[in-house]
Amino acid sequence: MQSNQAKPFSAYQLREDFPALAQSVNGVPLVYLDSAATSQKPRSVIQSICRYYENDNANVHRGVHALSERATAAYENARGRAAKFFGAEAQEIVFTRGATEGVNLLANTLKKRVLGEGKTILLTEMEHHSNIVPWQMVAQETGAVIRYIPVVPETGMLDEDEAKRLFAGGVAIFSCTHISNTLGTVNPVQSLCAWAREAGAVSIIDAAQSAGHRKVDVREIGCDFLVCSGHKMCGPMGVGVLYGEGSLLQDLPPWQGGGEMISRVTYEGSTWNKAPHKFEAGTPNVEGAIGLHAAMDYLDAVGREEIRLHDALLVREAMGVLSSFPGVRIFGPVDESGEHAGVVSFALPGIHAHDVVTLADSHGIALRGGHHCNQPLMKKLGVPATARASFYFYNTEEDVEALRCSVEKIMRMFSKL
Amino acid sequence: MQSNQAKPFSAYQLREDFPALAQSVNGVPLVYLDSAATSQKPRSVIQSICRYYENDNANVHRGVHALSERATAAYENARGRAAKFFGAEAQEIVFTRGATEGVNLLANTLKKRVLGEGKTILLTEMEHHSNIVPWQMVAQETGAVIRYIPVVPETGMLDEDEAKRLFAGGVAIFSCTHISNTLGTVNPVQSLCAWAREAGAVSIIDAAQSAGHRKVDVREIGCDFLVCSGHKMCGPMGVGVLYGEGSLLQDLPPWQGGGEMISRVTYEGSTWNKAPHKFEAGTPNVEGAIGLHAAMDYLDAVGREEIRLHDALLVREAMGVLSSFPGVRIFGPVDESGEHAGVVSFALPGIHAHDVVTLADSHGIALRGGHHCNQPLMKKLGVPATARASFYFYNTEEDVEALRCSVEKIMRMFSKL
Repeated sequence: MQSNQAKPFSAYQLREDFPALAQSVNGVPLVYLDSAATSQKPRSVIQSICRYYENDNANVHRGVHALSERATAAYENARGRAAKFFGAEAQEIVFTRGATEGVNLLANTLKKRVLGEGKTILLTEMEHHSNIVPWQMVAQETGAVIRYIPVVPETGMLDEDEAKRLFAGGVAIFSCTHISNTLGTVNPVQSLCAWAREAGAVSIIDAAQSAGHRKVDVREIGCDFLVCSGHKMCGPMGVGVLYGEGSLLQDLPPWQGGGEMISRVTYEGSTWNKAPHKFEAGTPNVEGAIGLHAAMDYLDAVGREEIRLHDALLVREAMGVLSSFPGVRIFGPVDESGEHAGVVSFALPGIHAHDVVTLADSHGIALRGGHHCNQPLMKKLGVPATARASFYFYNTEEDVEALRCSVEKIMRMFSKL
Repeated sequence: MQSNQAKPFSAYQLREDFPALAQSVNGVPLVYLDSAATSQKPRSVIQSICRYYENDNANVHRGVHALSERATAAYENARGRAAKFFGAEAQEIVFTRGATEGVNLLANTLKKRVLGEGKTILLTEMEHHSNIVPWQMVAQETGAVIRYIPVVPETGMLDEDEAKRLFAGGVAIFSCTHISNTLGTVNPVQSLCAWAREAGAVSIIDAAQSAGHRKVDVREIGCDFLVCSGHKMCGPMGVGVLYGEGSLLQDLPPWQGGGEMISRVTYEGSTWNKAPHKFEAGTPNVEGAIGLHAAMDYLDAVGREEIRLHDALLVREAMGVLSSFPGVRIFGPVDESGEHAGVVSFALPGIHAHDVVTLADSHGIALRGGHHCNQPLMKKLGVPATARASFYFYNTEEDVEALRCSVEKIMRMFSKL
């Protein structure tokens, strides 16, 4: 992989690093178009996990024996690597279980600092359930109010005028996805965070769909907090990153209690360790951090800008192919209305998404169908569900062609062609 | 491994399944006596992780394509396996990140059901920080009061008369470790849970130190809830189990919000999925569950009663060896005062635990030194720290002999012999 930086980008070559892609399902070669749900893992990530368990496995931080020192160094190196990946400092990086836990941690700690009766939490109508439900729970607890920046259904973009009006009304917390997992919309996070800052709001970016697909720099974005999931960026499951701006993170109260996060415990009470350890109660997922380290190395060797361009190329082709069928509805930004990341949601005329995905599976194609953890957005779009194809750097133009063939067969089967 | 059930137990043979044990550190063969912090992993567990990522990796529950169906089946099979392992039903098993998260989940959900001003949370003086700090946090929030069943310093056992008096005073929540990670004490969890039931208290058992070391059956113990960590029972890091009795678990409110745990989400509010999914927000750690499944298969093939007996054998030998040195203090149950699990904490006369562990490391021995996440217990025992040797089924009598040699060298170096 190290040599890839010099070589031209080749999805065909890169996919050879992914053992799971080299298989047949239902008698045909697998076409994996579900990376927005979880990405496949390169051999280097899988091997990093094996190597850890075969050589260095130990509990961290409190041990002075050789294995524990190696495990601790590997764990803290992974933190440093994540900091570099996101343009942050190591002490600003908390390892979580994933983006969902990151949002829950923020909701449950920020509520004690900035929420209260009548305070506003500003979200958008395109948030994943993970960035809605935790806020509903703390809103109910604190008397805070949730408002949503509307999505313009025709373009899949946020209504920016309405956003400005909402910010002007006073906002305590602003939390917004970088890239919509359903629409593929790339939100103008830099402007949104600037507006949040002007409004005196704490800003949070959900980078679950962007962290593995493009350069994500927290200083450039100007957010206070950012969350993502390792498993969507070639890393293992069960690990994620929470970035928190130095002093803001330090100022948050702890969330979970236990070992690692304390400084001193008596039967009567306890004092807390400093960030980031204050937020990592219990034995951390050392394996997960090490696997994520390998994933970040891999992604940077491929080139994050190259990944973004390749996603865009395939999504443009896929949208072209899909729109050539009569009556197909494509969601999210089209044409010049806005950047469309590597996710295409679509609906075939009179065919339920579940049937589309089931039939596509019989053609070897892994799509996802349903509400994509976006039930309220589905309602707004006026559909019960969509089929979704999501692309990554290991997908090729042949995969788009396979999607075209599958859709053609499905349309014929339902006599829509 | 399958054939081990028929074969006589052989630690020498079993250790060959553990790649990390076959290494030298500091020029001498590794003697790993830190399994109470984290266990090493058998090849079958490591391979199960690789196999998953190389073949079946996908997000679960919401997918209908082949990989997603395979991943979902593997994840739910792991839940069924955990249920069988603990004598429970699948819907009573929640996958967590580990024991610490399990206690935090219980503290933060039970507080809404049974805590309030003046209500009593009953713990013991030998709890790990993970079973103290979360309760301190919710006690502060709710006005509840924490009481501790005292430890008798001489025996390392709980004062049962005092326990009965405390239960008689009224208890809302009782949470107690099965085996002390510092003293090796095996608590009479069956009696304690019976007393809790009589007192109308919810009972929680922290099985972090017992789940991988002996048969742990939730119906036999009679607890309402039980938590443990996968990584201490030959499984991967980042996964654990929370058992909750059927109707009690179902009755708890959710803790974290996000995907998977909801039934219906609107912009205005949400309704919850049923247990166990209600408690598993976000993409679960499928890898972790699969690795833990392999670990439970491995442990049952070795035999949990055989593991308990082997632990006891080595710990008896180690206590004999250590007590042969002048002035050495051994903590926890000795002689016939009570069962002593595979953990021995000790203090060499006038030598700090940190020095003991550092020197032992130079002899290839991985011990742990410090407060073992038991700061208040250390204070009670009147020591700043202890050195701890913890044993597992892959340790041998040679390991005990290596410990003896190391202690002898350390004692000579400090002129205590």
